[in-house]
Amino acid sequence: MQEKWKEIDECVQHWLKEAGARIHTALEEKLTIETKAHRNDLVTNVDREIERFFIEKIRKTFPDHHVLGEEGFGDEIKTLQGVVWIIDPIDGTMNFIHQKRNFAISIGVFENGVGILGYVYDVVHDELYVARKGEGAFLNGKPLPRLEPVSVSEAVISLNATWVTENKRIDPKVLAPLVKAARGTRSYGSAALEMAYVAAGRLDAYITMRLSPWDFAGGLVLVQEAGGIVTNLYGEPLDLLGKNSVFVSKPGLHEEILQKYIHR
Amino acid sequence: MQEKWKEIDECVQHWLKEAGARIHTALEEKLTIETKAHRNDLVTNVDREIERFFIEKIRKTFPDHHVLGEEGFGDEIKTLQGVVWIIDPIDGTMNFIHQKRNFAISIGVFENGVGILGYVYDVVHDELYVARKGEGAFLNGKPLPRLEPVSVSEAVISLNATWVTENKRIDPKVLAPLVKAARGTRSYGSAALEMAYVAAGRLDAYITMRLSPWDFAGGLVLVQEAGGIVTNLYGEPLDLLGKNSVFVSKPGLHEEILQKYIHR
Repeated sequence: MQEKWKEIDECVQHWLKEAGARIHTALEEKLTIETKAHRNDLVTNVDREIERFFIEKIRKTFPDHHVLGEEGFGDEIKTLQGVVWIIDPIDGTMNFIHQKRNFAISIGVFENGVGILGYVYDVVHDELYVARKGEGAFLNGKPLPRLEPVSVSEAVISLNATWVTENKRIDPKVLAPLVKAARGTRSYGSAALEMAYVAAGRLDAYITMRLSPWDFAGGLVLVQEAGGIVTNLYGEPLDLLGKNSVFVSKPGLHEEILQKYIHR
Repeated sequence: MQEKWKEIDECVQHWLKEAGARIHTALEEKLTIETKAHRNDLVTNVDREIERFFIEKIRKTFPDHHVLGEEGFGDEIKTLQGVVWIIDPIDGTMNFIHQKRNFAISIGVFENGVGILGYVYDVVHDELYVARKGEGAFLNGKPLPRLEPVSVSEAVISLNATWVTENKRIDPKVLAPLVKAARGTRSYGSAALEMAYVAAGRLDAYITMRLSPWDFAGGLVLVQEAGGIVTNLYGEPLDLLGKNSVFVSKPGLHEEILQKYIHR
């Protein structure tokens, strides 16, 4: 990894710990909660504060980089040229509010559209997932073993009940047979964490029908560096500038699910 | 609380910590995994070892008590007369195997069918939930606040995707509208932990269609002592000697869900 990227990696890890400390403090205080696009799309003062924290740091340290952030304090990004940071200050805001855990800071750093660095930081459990392109994925500094193939019948898959009930994104009949065939299903309510769990082998796959780039940017680099596969539900590459379905999986399992269960 | 029960409570907490240490050690070693009733009903050498550990302790210390355990090392229980312990050495065995976390030891102690003591111990996160009848529920010694009513539209409900796809226990159409109406759904794969999360306010309700007494005995006492409601899906008391659907909820929410969503 080039010296320039090592420096960026060091900065991010340092900032993540500082942001984590701020979040710990905020969890002791009263949250200000508002809704965004719809009644269950929540945001707090902490989401905003942490995004501003990162954007200020990045702008000061790397003035020629661009930043796309969930809360809108970053740049208007229309192209992936150059170095682009994609940030979710708190992925899993509903968990943050209801549970005070099971949320994460997610950061992906891309160069001309290629993921170079990926981070998911589970603040409350102090689990920091880091991926560096070509060097692999790490949990608290320890290399994550390369993901091995598994079959649907032995797979634990993260898949929210929403996607097998009537919804705007997919016919509930498509994924229902997968729920029946899998060893088990789970749902944790944070895309970044669920992708990190796939990278760490705690889940075998994760499927969801609509995510924004900040939800999956960090996890994308992480899962790929752990040897997993990241596409949309139909096996196509994710669009880093738009909304996507997301299908993250161990190898082998990804192919089996695509072939046997996914029909447009 | 009577002296006798204080003594039992002290013993259980002591044994739980000892069992937790054994589980930590076992997590470093290779597991022996077998299936029981069906291909996804898993058991390990650790489930069996931990159940035997508790049963030996109980038989030696309280020879007139009866024990019902998941792995069958306890007594053949036909009545709830006297003091009955109901034990799950590892609730969430699939998580134990796949994730090495998100499982719990669950213990309920009943006198003539009335829950007196309840325990759920999340070994990996070292979170010990304790309930004593009439004294409330505690997490690592800190009293859990009494659960307050909440509405479906603001509720996060634990409900596995299985129950809204074709299955043997319930028409998927019954719970699908609840999935749509709730703020969010989750699924963690351990009944004991999900009941503990309701007691701790991390979830607002938990619904599942088929549990054995050892899955819910500890959580039952815990949730009731936190001010929550525990019934089967149809609002009836749970049968401590048989399989049940289980519907655990904050007050208010329990009534709303029963009235608006549950039809036999």
